[in-house]
Amino acid sequence: VSGYCVFNRGGGPPCVGYRRGDAVADLSELEEVFRQPSLNAFMAQGQAVEREARAAAEGAPSIPLDKVELHLPFEVADYVDFYSSIEHATNLGRLFRPDSDPLLPNWRRLPVGYHGRAGTIVVSGTTVQRPSGQSKPPDTDEPVFGPSKRLDIELELGYVIGTPSALGEPVPADSALEHVFGVVVVNDWSARDIQAWEYQPLGPFLGKSFATTISAFVTPVGELEPARVAGRQQEPEPLPYLRAEPSAYDIDLEVELNGEIVSRTSARNLYWSIEQQIAHLTVNGASLRTGDLLATGTISGPEPGSYGSLIELTWNGSEPLRLAEGGERTFPEDGDEVVLRGRAGDVELGEARGTILPAR
Amino acid sequence: VSGYCVFNRGGGPPCVGYRRGDAVADLSELEEVFRQPSLNAFMAQGQAVEREARAAAEGAPSIPLDKVELHLPFEVADYVDFYSSIEHATNLGRLFRPDSDPLLPNWRRLPVGYHGRAGTIVVSGTTVQRPSGQSKPPDTDEPVFGPSKRLDIELELGYVIGTPSALGEPVPADSALEHVFGVVVVNDWSARDIQAWEYQPLGPFLGKSFATTISAFVTPVGELEPARVAGRQQEPEPLPYLRAEPSAYDIDLEVELNGEIVSRTSARNLYWSIEQQIAHLTVNGASLRTGDLLATGTISGPEPGSYGSLIELTWNGSEPLRLAEGGERTFPEDGDEVVLRGRAGDVELGEARGTILPAR
Repeated sequence: VSGYCVFNRGGGPPCVGYRRGDAVADLSELEEVFRQPSLNAFMAQGQAVEREARAAAEGAPSIPLDKVELHLPFEVADYVDFYSSIEHATNLGRLFRPDSDPLLPNWRRLPVGYHGRAGTIVVSGTTVQRPSGQSKPPDTDEPVFGPSKRLDIELELGYVIGTPSALGEPVPADSALEHVFGVVVVNDWSARDIQAWEYQPLGPFLGKSFATTISAFVTPVGELEPARVAGRQQEPEPLPYLRAEPSAYDIDLEVELNGEIVSRTSARNLYWSIEQQIAHLTVNGASLRTGDLLATGTISGPEPGSYGSLIELTWNGSEPLRLAEGGERTFPEDGDEVVLRGRAGDVELGEARGTILPAR
Repeated sequence: VSGYCVFNRGGGPPCVGYRRGDAVADLSELEEVFRQPSLNAFMAQGQAVEREARAAAEGAPSIPLDKVELHLPFEVADYVDFYSSIEHATNLGRLFRPDSDPLLPNWRRLPVGYHGRAGTIVVSGTTVQRPSGQSKPPDTDEPVFGPSKRLDIELELGYVIGTPSALGEPVPADSALEHVFGVVVVNDWSARDIQAWEYQPLGPFLGKSFATTISAFVTPVGELEPARVAGRQQEPEPLPYLRAEPSAYDIDLEVELNGEIVSRTSARNLYWSIEQQIAHLTVNGASLRTGDLLATGTISGPEPGSYGSLIELTWNGSEPLRLAEGGERTFPEDGDEVVLRGRAGDVELGEARGTILPAR
């Protein structure tokens, strides 16, 4: 694994490190900006400073990974979740609107997205309590209250903003990547039954806001440069402000459930690029802040074994996953552990790991 | 006006003050927590400490309002916008879905809400640039790009969270008010044309994210205690976790456009209470953070002159407002100034003022 983290050792103060393999380089002796409990001040300094830090990490004291405690690596400013996988959007359209075009008319015209809850983003390894809430079963007129029966995962990547942009000044697509500091793996836990009842007309709220897991390591975009590939062609051609060389990251992704890999996919499948997402997010004058997290939305590939959520992998529960260890799953159960991983060639991203606790 | 603010004077450092009438009491000599550029550390200490500070403000040095510069009073953690006025929700339902029940089935069952963009919340007096973006006119198949033609205002109140709550632990309705520090007036600027094209299926995004204006003064809930009134009865009775004594604040509100009052309403009309909103927001285990802003959604009354948005006041542009100064408006134009005000008996809230600048 390669990436920046916030760690402490033996009850000491949290500080910034850089992980390579099974050790963390302690950067705290280098600069004051590394003696802080978040990456934000460092990330705000931009990519050139990041490259210098990565070089300096080579000579910094190295600590075995099992000697450190890891923390949420940055203070999340705003959390935006996009919906950029055409396979995922198509699958959900088929499941929920079987009688109409699975993609809504705006989907190919703009990167659909919404704001999630920044305050409930947790670091990999944090347990996730099954949420309770309102839902309305199809066979009743009245909503019911109770633990979610359809707690799901969503396999995503998240781009972390380093250098901010000014209010009122859109960021053009062709310079958007300069604002990105790095990438985390994201599990955007979703309670499908809560979400289905609440989301009209203002979008997902409690179905998503109980927890979002991110990896403890932020892999700088410079480390991922070799994984940049041409993205997929877009049809129809987007409006001028969204035009950019098609690009994607060839990051292999996998979903592990109780030790078994249940899905493999790649971020190269995504339809909308991070450059386009930033150009869209800011075209109305909205600013970027250091620590903004821009997630891709669930990443699914074209085949059933490459879907990024259980609702897709089990086709809304109708085709349970049969696990090698015995048993089957439609949606994850209490006690299940889910680990999401990403790898771009030799560069492994941090994992997003979480075990489900029973509802309160 | 009564409320806490962050101000500075003559290029000095920002610090905390308490406004009464036309002067600001400088609290910076009292405690370190007041020598900070935001209210957050103070707000986290809770209502008892707030009452002591308010008493101490009586003896603090007083500075004329015209000698101070005002800043955003707190760092916004998460921004949630609810949809709690039944008149507003009904009006928008009639306008957008004329052939069906104006209220969606979930509306009376739970306080519908969504997350907005915290990073573009600005203090009263900040100019607001007209946003550009995609929209799809009804008479074309293709979306177009350009400045919003339907830039609107939304008259709201915002509750500011003081003491946080723990992840995984729902806040019951009957103790929810203990987490609230105070109230601001909110203008949730909305580009109706951008919003209409983008919002399916994940909710409003760029139609709202360009700017949200809040007052410079946070009026503590203790000052508003005399304005607490019984709220309206709810039918059907909500699920147990949402049951609370019906409550509301009898806060008179007004919308001023270019110096002319175009709407008068009251927050006592709201259907869902702040206690219910907090109980709902946290029932899935989501935590509250100091600085969370929970806005009511547009506050409309039952008559046309009591609506909280131009899309309602002009019935989607079909009934322009005729201004006394001459001219008429469907939606605000460049150069227009909008001021939102609130008052509870003798206690005036801070105003939310903004002038519209042309699109970039």
